[in-house]
Amino acid sequence: MRDSFHAELDSLLGDLAKAARLAGQMMANASTALSQADLALAEQVLSSEGDMKALCDDMDQRCRKLLVLQAPVATDLRVVVAAMHAVRDVERMWNLAQHIAKIARLKHPTVPIPGDVRPVFARMGMLATSLAEDAAEAIESRDPLSAQRLAQADDEVDALRRRSFQILFAEDWAHGVEPAVDAALIGRYYERFADHAVAIARQVSFLVTGLPPDC
Amino acid sequence: MRDSFHAELDSLLGDLAKAARLAGQMMANASTALSQADLALAEQVLSSEGDMKALCDDMDQRCRKLLVLQAPVATDLRVVVAAMHAVRDVERMWNLAQHIAKIARLKHPTVPIPGDVRPVFARMGMLATSLAEDAAEAIESRDPLSAQRLAQADDEVDALRRRSFQILFAEDWAHGVEPAVDAALIGRYYERFADHAVAIARQVSFLVTGLPPDC
Repeated sequence: MRDSFHAELDSLLGDLAKAARLAGQMMANASTALSQADLALAEQVLSSEGDMKALCDDMDQRCRKLLVLQAPVATDLRVVVAAMHAVRDVERMWNLAQHIAKIARLKHPTVPIPGDVRPVFARMGMLATSLAEDAAEAIESRDPLSAQRLAQADDEVDALRRRSFQILFAEDWAHGVEPAVDAALIGRYYERFADHAVAIARQVSFLVTGLPPDC
Repeated sequence: MRDSFHAELDSLLGDLAKAARLAGQMMANASTALSQADLALAEQVLSSEGDMKALCDDMDQRCRKLLVLQAPVATDLRVVVAAMHAVRDVERMWNLAQHIAKIARLKHPTVPIPGDVRPVFARMGMLATSLAEDAAEAIESRDPLSAQRLAQADDEVDALRRRSFQILFAEDWAHGVEPAVDAALIGRYYERFADHAVAIARQVSFLVTGLPPDC
């Protein structure tokens, strides 16, 4: 009974890591769709909504079943609760990648991010994608120290967002209101995506150490 | 044993409803701070961060304790899981109210929202506050139909957000980039606040009916 419980838990965490990695891939695609006005790629990200929802609902159901059928305690309970929270984080990451793809589609064939802020957003996109990969690895390795590493990359995302505001609000910003608004929202989506990746790593830390995720 | 479990569960849900109501009050204060450039009120919202975090951490811990000590099944398990998710929603609502208070503080003594979009945001602020109150009532009454009612108000928030973009992107927008960026972000914060209130009502529906929150 307990062995089948642990096998199911391992399989759930494996799928969760895969889903986090996929969310990172979606964000990479959304970022490319944005910077290259690639409509087909934007559509590809947007058409993944049903798959993502089904995947996350399935993982959520499996968490609930594990709670009902096995009534886990101690570490096992922590793992199920952490997984349940992380499923929601992964779902939000996927949604945020879709928000960026939506802007790429809405503004096509224009590249919505003007030259001045493009390098800032290219870096944010890269960091966001790599944070999703790091979160997946944290789940796989159950590394309690990963949260700290992810928080450092997240700090860089926050700094880049502040940098983007400096550019948007500078007197020599010559691209008008609409690209500035798009850029501000895209920056917000990257920032939240990174926050959710860090939240997953914090859940991993919690499931290993038993200390609350925010410590 | 089961009686003390239900007493603790009722007390937890009571506190959760209070916390949702408080988040609504914070959003009302943040909206007033914004529209009247009221720095003291903005500071009041921002200084509540520690209290909010302690309150949500406490509720989260109580959910985990109920799972460990009582190993609830069926409806009882659903209530604990729903409460655990709703705690995170309330915490995010509080954070979003703080984001709006931060803009009010940063731009003080300027009112960051120019006249043209002010009525749109006044209405969004009112709806967001009332959605938090509705979410609190949904928890208290355990009304499975509340999700549908909240979703309607949420639709109006989404429509107002689209209306704000029409104003910001119109050719006669005369207030420049920075107020437009602020307005776009504030609109996003209201929208997410409303989404979390709806998510709480969906959790209530789930705990009563056992159907997944998104049905």
